[in-house]
Amino acid sequence: MYAVTLDGFGGPEVMTWAQVPDLPAPGPGEVSIDVVAAGVNRADLMQRQGFYPPPPGASETLGLECSGVIAEIGPGVQDWRPGDRVCALLSGGGYAERVLVPATQVLPVPEDWDLPAAAALPEVAATVWSNLVMTAGLRSGQLLLIHGGGSGIGTHAIQVARSLGARVAVTAGSKFKLDSCQELGASILINYREEDFVEVLKSESDGADVILDNMGAKYLARNVDALAEDGRLVIIGMQGGVTAELNLAVLLGKRGSVHATNLRRRAATGRGSKAEIVAELRRRVWPLVAEGSVVPVISAELPVADAAEAHRLLDSDDTVGKVILRVRED
Amino acid sequence: MYAVTLDGFGGPEVMTWAQVPDLPAPGPGEVSIDVVAAGVNRADLMQRQGFYPPPPGASETLGLECSGVIAEIGPGVQDWRPGDRVCALLSGGGYAERVLVPATQVLPVPEDWDLPAAAALPEVAATVWSNLVMTAGLRSGQLLLIHGGGSGIGTHAIQVARSLGARVAVTAGSKFKLDSCQELGASILINYREEDFVEVLKSESDGADVILDNMGAKYLARNVDALAEDGRLVIIGMQGGVTAELNLAVLLGKRGSVHATNLRRRAATGRGSKAEIVAELRRRVWPLVAEGSVVPVISAELPVADAAEAHRLLDSDDTVGKVILRVRED
Repeated sequence: MYAVTLDGFGGPEVMTWAQVPDLPAPGPGEVSIDVVAAGVNRADLMQRQGFYPPPPGASETLGLECSGVIAEIGPGVQDWRPGDRVCALLSGGGYAERVLVPATQVLPVPEDWDLPAAAALPEVAATVWSNLVMTAGLRSGQLLLIHGGGSGIGTHAIQVARSLGARVAVTAGSKFKLDSCQELGASILINYREEDFVEVLKSESDGADVILDNMGAKYLARNVDALAEDGRLVIIGMQGGVTAELNLAVLLGKRGSVHATNLRRRAATGRGSKAEIVAELRRRVWPLVAEGSVVPVISAELPVADAAEAHRLLDSDDTVGKVILRVRED
Repeated sequence: MYAVTLDGFGGPEVMTWAQVPDLPAPGPGEVSIDVVAAGVNRADLMQRQGFYPPPPGASETLGLECSGVIAEIGPGVQDWRPGDRVCALLSGGGYAERVLVPATQVLPVPEDWDLPAAAALPEVAATVWSNLVMTAGLRSGQLLLIHGGGSGIGTHAIQVARSLGARVAVTAGSKFKLDSCQELGASILINYREEDFVEVLKSESDGADVILDNMGAKYLARNVDALAEDGRLVIIGMQGGVTAELNLAVLLGKRGSVHATNLRRRAATGRGSKAEIVAELRRRVWPLVAEGSVVPVISAELPVADAAEAHRLLDSDDTVGKVILRVRED
C-alpha cells in the first residue's frame, strides 16, 4: 500500500507518498479502514520535525484521524462490518491508504454526511468534548474563552459550546478569522495583535468560567487573571512555551484550577480513555452534527501526495478550520 | 455578652476575653447559637496578625466553627428549634458566648456525641469533603497524599479517605505525628525532615491520585512531580509561599491539574456554596461520625479566656489534631 513516509525529521519536504509494506490483518478488537481522507493536525507538524514521537505501539506514520470505509474486522468485533462508512480517532497512521484502529475509536458516518469532510471531526471533537465537558464541566450560561478561535479546534469548540448554551469569547490574529468565529456563534471577539484579552474580557464579563488554551507558559498568568470565580483553565498546547510562574494566591482567591491534558497518550480503554471519549461523542456530539448545529469547518482539501503543501498551509496560520488530505475517492 | 476582642493586630497577647455589645436577634434564615466550644484554626492566627481580613458582612470576631445550643431562630427557619444541640460552620464570630449563622451552615449533634468535641468538626469536615470529594473526586482504590498529616485537617482527611476506600500517604515532621497518622489509617508515612516525599512516594506507588497541600509555592514543583496520571493537586494553604514556577509539560504529560481553593469566601448559598457543602456533610460524613469511622481528633481543650495560649499551642506545631476553646459548660 501507499503511505506518507518521512525521509528523516525536518521541514514539509521530508514527506513522500511512497509504497510501504501492507498492514497485517486486524487483531482482536481491531478494524482496518480504507482511508478516504485524513485530517491534518498541528501535532503532525511537530511529529514531522521530530518533536512529538508516537506513543509506544502506535504507527510511525503521521495522521491522528481519518474517514473511510471499514475494510476488515478483527476477532470479536461486533459493531462494524466491512463497507461501513466511518471516521476514526487514531494514535497514528492516517496518512495512508489503510489504517488499523481499535473498534472502540471508530464512529459512524451516516449516508447523508460528506465522507471526506468527516475526516475533520474525530480529533477536534474528541479534544473539545473531553476538555470542555469531561474535564472542565462547561455548562449552559457559562462563558468560554477560546484562544485561537479560528483553528480546527477553535471553530469546533465555538459550535459545541453554543450548543451547550454557553457564551463564547475568542482570540484570533485577524479580522477575517474573528468574522468567521462570529458567524459560528462567538460573541466576544478579541484581536490579540491589537488588544489585551484580559482587559477586553473583564470589560465585557466577570471573567471566563472555562479557558481553552494552546499557548501554555506565555499566557499562564494572564489566563489565571482572566478566570472567573471557580474558573477552569485547560491547557492543551504549549505553543508559547513550557514553564511559567504561577501565582497561587490569585488562583486561590477565585478558587480556580489549571488543567493540562493530552489526547494521544490516553489509554485505549478504561476511565478517561479514548473509548470513553468516543462513546461520549457518539451519544452527545453526533446528534448535534446530524441536526446541523455543529458542522465540520474545512479550510482546504488537498491530495495526500501534496501533504507537504498541506503542512505549509497549516503552518502559515492563514487557515480557518481544518486542512484535510484526500487519499481516495469515496 | 463576652467575646474575644483584639487590641490591634499582632501576637497572641492582643486577644482579650471582654464584654462586647449583645448580638441582634437572628434575621431571616439565621439562627443564633449559645456557644459551648469553638475550634481554633490556622486562619484565626493569620486574622489575629492582620493578614486575613474577614469577608464583607462577616463578624470581626475570630472563630470559624463552634458547637453549642440553638438560642433563637429567625423568620423562615424550619429546621432548627431553640435548645437543639448543634455545631456550625461560621464566617467568623465563634470566639464568643453567642454567634449568628445562616441556618444552612448548622449541623446536628446527636445526644450521644460529645458536644464540645463537635466544635472540632465543621471547618475540617467542610474543608476535607469539599476538596477531596467535590473538587478532586477522590475514589476508592486511589492514593491520597496529605501534607501535614498530623494537623486538624490532616487527621480528619486520613479518616474520611480511608472510609472512602482510598490509600493514604502523609508527610509530617515527627515520629509522634506519623505514629498518630498510622493509627488513624495512613499507610505511607514520610518524615519530611528526613526524607524527600517524592522519592518515598514514587518508591511505594505510581504517584498520588490526589494531593492535599498546605505549603503552596514551596512544594508546587515537587507536588506536580509526585502526581500520578490524571492526578489532582489541591492547594488549600500557602505556608510555603505564593508564587512558583510551574512546568506545564510535566503537568500535561500526566494530564494533571492544580486546584487552589478557599472555604471562607464561598457564597452562603448556590452551587459550590457553604450550604451545599454542609448538606453533603450531613448526608455523607455525619453517618461516618455516627458509626465511629471518623472521630474528632482533639489535641487540647482550653478555656476561651486562654485563647492566647491556644494560639501559641497551635503555632508551636506540636499538636496532633485540633485545639478547641471551651466557652461554657454544656
